[in-house]
Amino acid sequence: MDACERATRDPLTTITAMAETPTYERIEGLPVGQYVAYSFFKVDPAWRRLPAAERADHKAEFAAVVTDWQGRIEGLRAYSTVGVRPETDFFLWKITENYDDLLELGAALNGTGLAGWLSTPYSYLATTKPSVYTDKKRVRQGKVLPRNGLYLVVYPFVKLRPWYFLTMEERRDAMREHADVGGKYVTVTNHTTYSFGIDDQEFMPAFECDEPADFMHLMMALRETEASRWTERDTPIFVGALREIREALDALDGA
Amino acid sequence: MDACERATRDPLTTITAMAETPTYERIEGLPVGQYVAYSFFKVDPAWRRLPAAERADHKAEFAAVVTDWQGRIEGLRAYSTVGVRPETDFFLWKITENYDDLLELGAALNGTGLAGWLSTPYSYLATTKPSVYTDKKRVRQGKVLPRNGLYLVVYPFVKLRPWYFLTMEERRDAMREHADVGGKYVTVTNHTTYSFGIDDQEFMPAFECDEPADFMHLMMALRETEASRWTERDTPIFVGALREIREALDALDGA
Amino acid sequence: MDACERATRDPLTTITAMAETPTYERIEGLPVGQYVAYSFFKVDPAWRRLPAAERADHKAEFAAVVTDWQGRIEGLRAYSTVGVRPETDFFLWKITENYDDLLELGAALNGTGLAGWLSTPYSYLATTKPSVYTDKKRVRQGKVLPRNGLYLVVYPFVKLRPWYFLTMEERRDAMREHADVGGKYVTVTNHTTYSFGIDDQEFMPAFECDEPADFMHLMMALRETEASRWTERDTPIFVGALREIREALDALDGA
Amino acid sequence: MDACERATRDPLTTITAMAETPTYERIEGLPVGQYVAYSFFKVDPAWRRLPAAERADHKAEFAAVVTDWQGRIEGLRAYSTVGVRPETDFFLWKITENYDDLLELGAALNGTGLAGWLSTPYSYLATTKPSVYTDKKRVRQGKVLPRNGLYLVVYPFVKLRPWYFLTMEERRDAMREHADVGGKYVTVTNHTTYSFGIDDQEFMPAFECDEPADFMHLMMALRETEASRWTERDTPIFVGALREIREALDALDGA
Amino acid sequence: MDACERATRDPLTTITAMAETPTYERIEGLPVGQYVAYSFFKVDPAWRRLPAAERADHKAEFAAVVTDWQGRIEGLRAYSTVGVRPETDFFLWKITENYDDLLELGAALNGTGLAGWLSTPYSYLATTKPSVYTDKKRVRQGKVLPRNGLYLVVYPFVKLRPWYFLTMEERRDAMREHADVGGKYVTVTNHTTYSFGIDDQEFMPAFECDEPADFMHLMMALRETEASRWTERDTPIFVGALREIREALDALDGA
Repeated sequence: MDACERATRDPLTTITAMAETPTYERIEGLPVGQYVAYSFFKVDPAWRRLPAAERADHKAEFAAVVTDWQGRIEGLRAYSTVGVRPETDFFLWKITENYDDLLELGAALNGTGLAGWLSTPYSYLATTKPSVYTDKKRVRQGKVLPRNGLYLVVYPFVKLRPWYFLTMEERRDAMREHADVGGKYVTVTNHTTYSFGIDDQEFMPAFECDEPADFMHLMMALRETEASRWTERDTPIFVGALREIREALDALDGA
Repeated sequence: MDACERATRDPLTTITAMAETPTYERIEGLPVGQYVAYSFFKVDPAWRRLPAAERADHKAEFAAVVTDWQGRIEGLRAYSTVGVRPETDFFLWKITENYDDLLELGAALNGTGLAGWLSTPYSYLATTKPSVYTDKKRVRQGKVLPRNGLYLVVYPFVKLRPWYFLTMEERRDAMREHADVGGKYVTVTNHTTYSFGIDDQEFMPAFECDEPADFMHLMMALRETEASRWTERDTPIFVGALREIREALDALDGA
Repeated sequence: MDACERATRDPLTTITAMAETPTYERIEGLPVGQYVAYSFFKVDPAWRRLPAAERADHKAEFAAVVTDWQGRIEGLRAYSTVGVRPETDFFLWKITENYDDLLELGAALNGTGLAGWLSTPYSYLATTKPSVYTDKKRVRQGKVLPRNGLYLVVYPFVKLRPWYFLTMEERRDAMREHADVGGKYVTVTNHTTYSFGIDDQEFMPAFECDEPADFMHLMMALRETEASRWTERDTPIFVGALREIREALDALDGA
Repeated sequence: MDACERATRDPLTTITAMAETPTYERIEGLPVGQYVAYSFFKVDPAWRRLPAAERADHKAEFAAVVTDWQGRIEGLRAYSTVGVRPETDFFLWKITENYDDLLELGAALNGTGLAGWLSTPYSYLATTKPSVYTDKKRVRQGKVLPRNGLYLVVYPFVKLRPWYFLTMEERRDAMREHADVGGKYVTVTNHTTYSFGIDDQEFMPAFECDEPADFMHLMMALRETEASRWTERDTPIFVGALREIREALDALDGA
Repeated sequence: MDACERATRDPLTTITAMAETPTYERIEGLPVGQYVAYSFFKVDPAWRRLPAAERADHKAEFAAVVTDWQGRIEGLRAYSTVGVRPETDFFLWKITENYDDLLELGAALNGTGLAGWLSTPYSYLATTKPSVYTDKKRVRQGKVLPRNGLYLVVYPFVKLRPWYFLTMEERRDAMREHADVGGKYVTVTNHTTYSFGIDDQEFMPAFECDEPADFMHLMMALRETEASRWTERDTPIFVGALREIREALDALDGA
């Protein structure tokens, strides 16, 4: 389907045909929420055997695409994991209102020379977009606003299914205790987003901090809170160091 | 066994020899149900190092096969996942009455130049074909009729085995609540099909929508329904963006 | 150890030295039971970049070995999974009385040009050989006799360990119900074999049918039988389409 | 640290500095127990594309190292899995008193031409060495003495952790029943060794037999013993056929 | 973000803006705790096909970087696993006060010729850094001080979540018993560090010993302690043999 076809399709018409009493009200055109995604990259070791000039070209081209897109979407930051996490070299934190930006950015990166040597071991998709249905207000409406902390810790999170059958009060109490304990770690900034049904996890917790050990203490303290009891999966955990994209790429070949 | 041999074999004879009282009545020749399959593709990063003209030929050839088969089977659509899902670049949604079409289409795609650089990280098989046995009517007879929604969310689904030992009434109540909650999300169209015994999952839920975040809210709301309690596995979850096959292939190298 | 050494070793002597009262009576020389094995193959996509003539030679050579061995062991059939199962292209169903035939056939296939481009994502080993110990009669003595059904569905099967601590009567009742339900699907032929201790699964269920959807209905019906409650693992599930080996290989490159 | 440095370090001195009352008495120099290890190899399919002469050289060189080491350590046998187990082609059963022999043998094999084309999908480490602490006598002191059975079945084994909290009497009764059932299979010789803390499994059961189906019946019978209830993992299971190393290597390319 | 930008950012200011009553007191500039990391390396078998001189250059260059960094951070030791652990050839034990040293060392190693042929199957991150929050004193403050034991056993460790809901007294008793049993193995030195939230495990136990079998007996004895009951995962387990980096690299190709 080309762009033109997409433009002429009217979802409202389709929906009306499907439901007698539509209960949603999407506020078209308004900046309502964000898609927040993390893409991880690993360079093929064989890339390091290329002549240095060719590698430099590859890196410059990839960095140029990233830099270009930093001016086109709400957030685009690079984090290095070289020497720390074995299956990734760096990752991008992407924030945009429009889902298709993620695909277009992906295609643009695929057009670079470096993409001939990159694999993508992980990628995570989440959102803060509110529901178009008026009676669903649970997702926080606030924008994710990075503070350029030195490090970003991010991981996919799934709760044990029985959590969702606790009473609202039980869950509220657990989350309040969790927030109370976590809130004391004032050097850590939380940017959790929602992935139900659009990726394999339920949440994408993400935390900016200035020293990874600070986050270790936060997570150790949270182990004893009631909410921790309901964790099904909270790995893999990635610690990224905020870098200019050129700097992150230079770590690939130590050049 | 060649086509001729297959034509001359008579399954009815075979069956009669095996069972004294055959209880099935396959209505041969009637269009009874569909096979519904999803095939995921990932291009080898090294393909991007080929000359642009060679890549263009590869894409054109692959697209030609897809276009040809779009006229031969009930449904064949391409969805792009570039930049979002790490292990796939695009997938095909295939609908046909005849199982062997899936193999023939697979062989035809294997004959293209692009197939020398494609891996197939996932593939899912399901069906809506009714039982040939008169006392088994549980599979819905309706055809899967895509509405060309902008996005398709699809994932393999397995229920906890004890679900199947609830009473019929308990299951009916749970599914009714599930349908009631899901039904409010009128922008989302459900195309679930059946995979018991012919693939690793039990069901292949598939949902067309016009905004991935809408589906996120649907799945978040369903977490609290009784049916959700009986989920064993509902991952990996794929969000595909409907594209002309040429457009989907162009995203592979950003060309 | 060469063949000569093997021939001169006398297992009976060894055993006598180890046990005062040997209770087994292997009936040497009698055709007692079979080894039944399934080997899955996937061609390296790069193979498709070779000249067509080279590919044709590879296929012819591989097919010649299979054809040769079809005359040497009890059963050897090829099944295509192209376009359906993502990690395999085709598989061989092998039946022989002598275990070492499996190794010799493997070595013979390794000697073909195609073997330079094939990986073996799965392989399963099972047997119907009776016990050499007189008090163990549980494995059925009947031979596996394929009927050349159009499709073969096969998967590794492991029961939950507590199954083996049910009383014999409970297990017999569960298996009788299972057989009663399954037996109604007269278009499906069961060829289950035993893998305890010689492969990662306990059983290798295998079913010939003439339409994959028929087997889907069978497995859906079995979900509600008592035996189903004791399933630990019954995946991956493979649906193969019976093909002459040349036809199965031609699907690799659509030629 | 070079060999000289290692020779001049005195572990006794170190220990004395760390503990006031050392309770161990290692009997230095005495042949106390063995390391028993299994290394699995898979040849890159691309190796089969090399000229036959080059392959022959590779095999001869690898076999020469194995033959050399057969004269240097207590046990070194090759087992072929070609055509049966999909992720391995052959494995080595290694027995030695000195741990560093395993590393030296590994390095020596790495020096062969074949090592440029071999991957090592599995490797297992175990020991029968007694404790240096006088109050720990649980590991059997007997040497592992292979009888050159035609086949070796080997797998990593982990018990459910609650097993270790049964009373000694409960465990003794369970193991006695297990031994009674297994002992009747006099054609099967048990060589189980210990891996706690030095590899991912707790035990490495290994069984020599002259017909794989015999072991299948043994394991099927053991399923109903009390000890079986406490199994956490007993896979992957490997059936190897004893072969001269040259014969095992010849199966790689059917030459 | 370049080094200059990082230097001019004031985390204290950021924090003050976020919390009215900051309760932490990071003692800037003081050597407070360490990051302790383990990086595992595997050479591509194809590297062994290179000319010996090229391999020698690769090894010398890699060793030079390691040697250089041994003078720059608190600890940097190489351990060989050749011939024992299938997915790794050697690993580095890294100890430093500054997190970014891990990234810089990673980038420096990436700049060597050998890095064009190395994969990194595992890497583990842990810390002993104390909390910057005054009321969190649980992490031991002592430095990790290797004693150059002949072998290092290391593995990632995760406790069952319910462990964290035992009373402090229950946990203290369990850990005391655990320490009492373990403490008798005076030939084994414990260097456990903390990974909560900064890697997929909770702890990184690491043990120096002079004979791997000694550690086997320690772990076998610990199986019956109360603490063992609360283990969720304690694999993969790596046994490394302390080697000069040049010696560890020479084992890659037996040269």
